[in-house]
Amino acid sequence: MYKLLKKKNSVRRGEFHTPHGTIQTPVFMNVGTLAAIKGAVSSMDLKEIGCQVELSNTYHLHLRPGDEVVRKMGGLHKFMNWDRPILTDSGGFQVFSLAKLRQIKEEGVYFNSHIDGRRIFMGPEESMRIQSNLGSTIAMAFDECIPNPSTREYVLKSVDRTTRWLERCKIEMDRLNSLEGTVNNKQMLFGINQGGTYDDIRIEHAKTISKMNLDGYAIGGLAVGETHEEMYRIISSVVPYLPQDKPIYLMGVGLPSNILEAVERGVDFFDCVLPARNGRHGHVFTSTGKINIMNAKYELDDNPIDKGCGCPTCQHYSRAYIRHLFKAKEMLAMRLCVLHNLYFYNKLMEEIRNAIDGDYFEDYKEEKLHAWSGNV
Amino acid sequence: MYKLLKKKNSVRRGEFHTPHGTIQTPVFMNVGTLAAIKGAVSSMDLKEIGCQVELSNTYHLHLRPGDEVVRKMGGLHKFMNWDRPILTDSGGFQVFSLAKLRQIKEEGVYFNSHIDGRRIFMGPEESMRIQSNLGSTIAMAFDECIPNPSTREYVLKSVDRTTRWLERCKIEMDRLNSLEGTVNNKQMLFGINQGGTYDDIRIEHAKTISKMNLDGYAIGGLAVGETHEEMYRIISSVVPYLPQDKPIYLMGVGLPSNILEAVERGVDFFDCVLPARNGRHGHVFTSTGKINIMNAKYELDDNPIDKGCGCPTCQHYSRAYIRHLFKAKEMLAMRLCVLHNLYFYNKLMEEIRNAIDGDYFEDYKEEKLHAWSGNV
Repeated sequence: MYKLLKKKNSVRRGEFHTPHGTIQTPVFMNVGTLAAIKGAVSSMDLKEIGCQVELSNTYHLHLRPGDEVVRKMGGLHKFMNWDRPILTDSGGFQVFSLAKLRQIKEEGVYFNSHIDGRRIFMGPEESMRIQSNLGSTIAMAFDECIPNPSTREYVLKSVDRTTRWLERCKIEMDRLNSLEGTVNNKQMLFGINQGGTYDDIRIEHAKTISKMNLDGYAIGGLAVGETHEEMYRIISSVVPYLPQDKPIYLMGVGLPSNILEAVERGVDFFDCVLPARNGRHGHVFTSTGKINIMNAKYELDDNPIDKGCGCPTCQHYSRAYIRHLFKAKEMLAMRLCVLHNLYFYNKLMEEIRNAIDGDYFEDYKEEKLHAWSGNV
Repeated sequence: MYKLLKKKNSVRRGEFHTPHGTIQTPVFMNVGTLAAIKGAVSSMDLKEIGCQVELSNTYHLHLRPGDEVVRKMGGLHKFMNWDRPILTDSGGFQVFSLAKLRQIKEEGVYFNSHIDGRRIFMGPEESMRIQSNLGSTIAMAFDECIPNPSTREYVLKSVDRTTRWLERCKIEMDRLNSLEGTVNNKQMLFGINQGGTYDDIRIEHAKTISKMNLDGYAIGGLAVGETHEEMYRIISSVVPYLPQDKPIYLMGVGLPSNILEAVERGVDFFDCVLPARNGRHGHVFTSTGKINIMNAKYELDDNPIDKGCGCPTCQHYSRAYIRHLFKAKEMLAMRLCVLHNLYFYNKLMEEIRNAIDGDYFEDYKEEKLHAWSGNV
């Protein structure tokens, strides 16, 4: 249940109540694809770096260890020892980005596993059943993530199918939640807005799915090649047509600057692999922009990655030490940088919430964008 | 300064006072070759899992990041943020096991770096200077680690040279400690006993180096291919000829069972890469022997690696989860198993000390060897 705490222009400050605790929004979800954050970061670490919601990937967990295994282990929360909210995606995005020899039909998608090549079918019902086995707090509807660019004709056809799939998702999720023995009988379902870069198709679709009384609404199919300006324009177009009493989730976005722009346009939920992936490559966020810790100029730099940062890495280790760890190919290098970057994102969201609470979001946004000098 | 707290037969319980704090012995030193434990384990983690002494490798740090860099950063303690004792090896073992195109001369060893192939010279003075730059608590003398098997003739020649090198190490370490600007002016020096598998050569060498008033004495050149029985025989032969008012360190050993046998024979210090290396491959120690966590039978096993274990891994995660992480190639798998194994070793040493204090070491040893069923 979403509770709007404050609204100014389109900027929203809210709370989302779930059976696994309350989420303060706007929020950034930390991506743990396979029930662990890449970079040797555990669920214990996530608590330490201020993560509110963990996000896992349905497609990956379906293949390894298998959602049946997770169900038998009591669900994802118990399996990975995380008692706060978990969102699982539908698997749709991965089916469309990772899997091979894909065939899209009305019933769903046939594809080959990217692990062992075996033929798999996934449709709305399968996605719901897998997510139900995982027992996440929030399940995402199974949709087609439309490639960019796509013709208007294809997008129209695809969005219609995604709507029919959403109806099937809702029916199946209701059925699964009513069964005895379901891991989480209060699993919530978010619908996903699609429509490529066609604002009118996006708006029509938003209107249609808004009538379906889902627990939240996502904007999908962005950050797939369009410009930032297109992305911002689409968000601005779509948000007014989504229910204002439900959280709005911008999927797979993004850079800190993208998040500020999207919060300004009314978005509540975010997720992205970028902070963890960047961290594993030694690209770390600071209050003055992103730096590459492997740069030779940090060889003797005794400072933490970011002065004033409260993360476990900056509390204990210097740029020189972390640079050395990368050069020496020590795994600890990745761990320290991923911890720092995720903390940076979680802290950014906390500051955004404080700024909205304190009525200075616009100033905060301008100040941050200026400080980062376009480098995040 | 070594203080003997208790002795029964050959078993010793002691304290070793250093400028970086007191070490309770017998002790197992945790190996962080490049100023980090392989498996994404940090100096903060080492405190949590009960590590008393961290061990780093001189040869590796000389190549990366370079000991001059570490010196400029204030020494190894500051560089890796570890305020307890650090022991550095001499580089000798790595020169003899890793480096290529080795030429041993009276002045030292010429070899090619295993990283970039550049020609490097290391002799006793160089090893002392590097270790002085690192500023470790305890430096090890530069010696030749003799291959096994070697002829009696070669071993005699090598041991004589190692003695001459030890004299040069002592002179150079005294000089370095007297200089202004030295990272750690109270750096201690341990000598190393060699002699291959020839007890009489080992004993002669032990007598010779015992006269040199070093801060501690190591038994080197073991665990290089000889049988466990040979190793135990040599320890038993040599220990009585080493000073009883100094700590005795068995280098590179070993399995938990080896440690129990060596403690029984009077050894105080141990180190080995084995717990971390095993952990990275999913081989974890338990109270009933070593298990391979990747075994299919753990797929749905809800138990921790070892029931009753107090390590951070066993407190929070199941065998099934850790097995999944390995199968999914998540780095976190290695981290969790390395943390567990190091905790297991540190805890074993604590129990050994308690057993000596409580006068039940022999029973403890038999009980452990029985419980492990020869499987550690």
